[in-house]
Amino acid sequence: MTHTPGAFENFYSIIPAGGIGSRLWPLSRADAPKFLHDLTGSGQTLLRDTWDRLAPLSGEDRIMVVTGRAHRAAVEEQLPELEDLNVVLESEPKDSSAAIGLAAAILVKREPDVIIGSFAADHVIKDKRGFRRSVGEGIAAARAGYIATIGITPTEPAIGFGYIHCDGRLDIEGAPSAVGVKSFVEKPDQATAERYVADGDHLWNGGMFIARADVFLTQLGESQPELLEGLTRLADAWDTPKRGAVVDAVWPGLTKIAVDYSVAEPAAEAGKLVVIPGDFDWDDVGDFASIAKLHSGGRKSDLAILGENARVLADASTGVVISQSGRLISLIGVTDIVVVDTPDALLVTTTANAQRVKSVVDALKVSGRSDVL
Amino acid sequence: MTHTPGAFENFYSIIPAGGIGSRLWPLSRADAPKFLHDLTGSGQTLLRDTWDRLAPLSGEDRIMVVTGRAHRAAVEEQLPELEDLNVVLESEPKDSSAAIGLAAAILVKREPDVIIGSFAADHVIKDKRGFRRSVGEGIAAARAGYIATIGITPTEPAIGFGYIHCDGRLDIEGAPSAVGVKSFVEKPDQATAERYVADGDHLWNGGMFIARADVFLTQLGESQPELLEGLTRLADAWDTPKRGAVVDAVWPGLTKIAVDYSVAEPAAEAGKLVVIPGDFDWDDVGDFASIAKLHSGGRKSDLAILGENARVLADASTGVVISQSGRLISLIGVTDIVVVDTPDALLVTTTANAQRVKSVVDALKVSGRSDVL
Repeated sequence: MTHTPGAFENFYSIIPAGGIGSRLWPLSRADAPKFLHDLTGSGQTLLRDTWDRLAPLSGEDRIMVVTGRAHRAAVEEQLPELEDLNVVLESEPKDSSAAIGLAAAILVKREPDVIIGSFAADHVIKDKRGFRRSVGEGIAAARAGYIATIGITPTEPAIGFGYIHCDGRLDIEGAPSAVGVKSFVEKPDQATAERYVADGDHLWNGGMFIARADVFLTQLGESQPELLEGLTRLADAWDTPKRGAVVDAVWPGLTKIAVDYSVAEPAAEAGKLVVIPGDFDWDDVGDFASIAKLHSGGRKSDLAILGENARVLADASTGVVISQSGRLISLIGVTDIVVVDTPDALLVTTTANAQRVKSVVDALKVSGRSDVL
Repeated sequence: MTHTPGAFENFYSIIPAGGIGSRLWPLSRADAPKFLHDLTGSGQTLLRDTWDRLAPLSGEDRIMVVTGRAHRAAVEEQLPELEDLNVVLESEPKDSSAAIGLAAAILVKREPDVIIGSFAADHVIKDKRGFRRSVGEGIAAARAGYIATIGITPTEPAIGFGYIHCDGRLDIEGAPSAVGVKSFVEKPDQATAERYVADGDHLWNGGMFIARADVFLTQLGESQPELLEGLTRLADAWDTPKRGAVVDAVWPGLTKIAVDYSVAEPAAEAGKLVVIPGDFDWDDVGDFASIAKLHSGGRKSDLAILGENARVLADASTGVVISQSGRLISLIGVTDIVVVDTPDALLVTTTANAQRVKSVVDALKVSGRSDVL
């Protein structure tokens, strides 16, 4: 085992790279999910941005990517440094508990003291220093036996994120800002979100988890014993010639459940979860309104334009244009507009309706027009 | 000379088929002008609709079409009945005085008593009976030596049309509703338009002229003697082998001026113009708001969808979608929207901004992006 200078001891990053990002249709597709797009204008995909953020923390030989078989080639193209033993391919999507749990189970067999950190492939964080500081505290809390999550100090009463209701400060060595968790709350309505931001006791749920792999798996097993058993069978076979046969036998039967429900909420109830309040910028880029905001720096007067070789002629228009077709796009007097122009599908909506994009995807599925999904 | 049963004696229709219709970009293009589109959902082009409206009035062997050389093939495809001697090709656009004036000059040489009626190729009139009645009165006024225009009784305070300020009733045999004209007024602002509609003395200027060809040309010669001289030289050579040479020599120097200024306004001042108030429906389909209105029957809650094989998925959206690309178009929560989707250019605006579309075309010209014009 090599050690990258500056990387945290025993630490292993996990990137679950799944999920299409239906609210970003027709940009995100089954064959071009959100994490394979450059949504920030950084010049590289969200997945690559995530990798670059994590490599200094764990070393680039200690980042495991869990993704669908269909995305293997694209992921490897994005991450040429990714080693074969760090690739976990899902034969079909089984939600985050299976994805992170399998990675944890494989890693703990290879390295019993390993501390895992799971970070979505498609979130945006620019402040690498602030992120590192929070991860460091999370790792310290993990060493003390806790499951740590990173909560983001809200900058506005967002209704597109879940929140974490914080409890009192804990006394954990190396994690001075760690606090307990009263509860997780789902995406609130506007009034509730405003109350959350005002009371100072709520953080955005960034969906990042840091824990000893064994602690994480024990917690998972308490709520999902069958799932843990399946993951253990997979992990036992993983580094052996039996992998393929066991995957075929076990994977289809794995319980689909989000890690929030299988691990985070039960751990919070049991007093085993801590949250590290993160002061860095964070966005899950969950919809086109979020993209517009990211690009405008919050200025309502701006029109964000994404897309290589975008040809846009805009007059008195604000919002976001995403150009993937090479066509000339002309906007006149449309405000807070969202235009997503791809070769086979066009979306026109407004930032206020951005969360409703998923309903179109659902309608397309129902009506059998999956050629554009 | 044959005579079509029901056609008016001595009457000849002229269809000036020019003008791109910049306010309908990117649907209307230099190579696909407005009159070559089906904007009404009738299943045929505006030009063909115009032909079908005029054929019973003059006979289909008595309709002359004046168009650009570039559109000859498309026009002949639309109008297979169009006879060669009724085709007048412009080597370059010289505005409506030259187009109508040349047709009048050619026709008067062939048939000294001819009465011409000029009707735009790209207007929409559904009430053929009402139209016929007004044209009949116009022809009667023309026989009495007047230049007649048809004004449309306004159904709303439109700001996209010019108006005719009417004077008192005249006593013309066969034209019982003919009134004099005080003045022509350009597109008014909203308050003025409302006043016009309220006072009952204003009609929309439908841009239709009916006159003896010799009377029309005499009037033209009074304000534009050089233009008349050029047109006369062209007409003298037209039905001879010298046509090509004279066109090359004369056409480039013709004065560009709209017939409203060269004929209608001077004739009104001289008391030689009468207006027939038309009670039929009429629209010049000048912009996308007009198309939306035509298709919705004025219902604000509707989304008009134009285009063969249009694939549109709309939720809580109103306005108009014109699909020419075959792509799936999805709209969510956009009201009074205008989406025009063509293979190389996309326009997104609102019906309220429809008149501003021309400014985009101007900007594209200036910036050298005429590939999409």
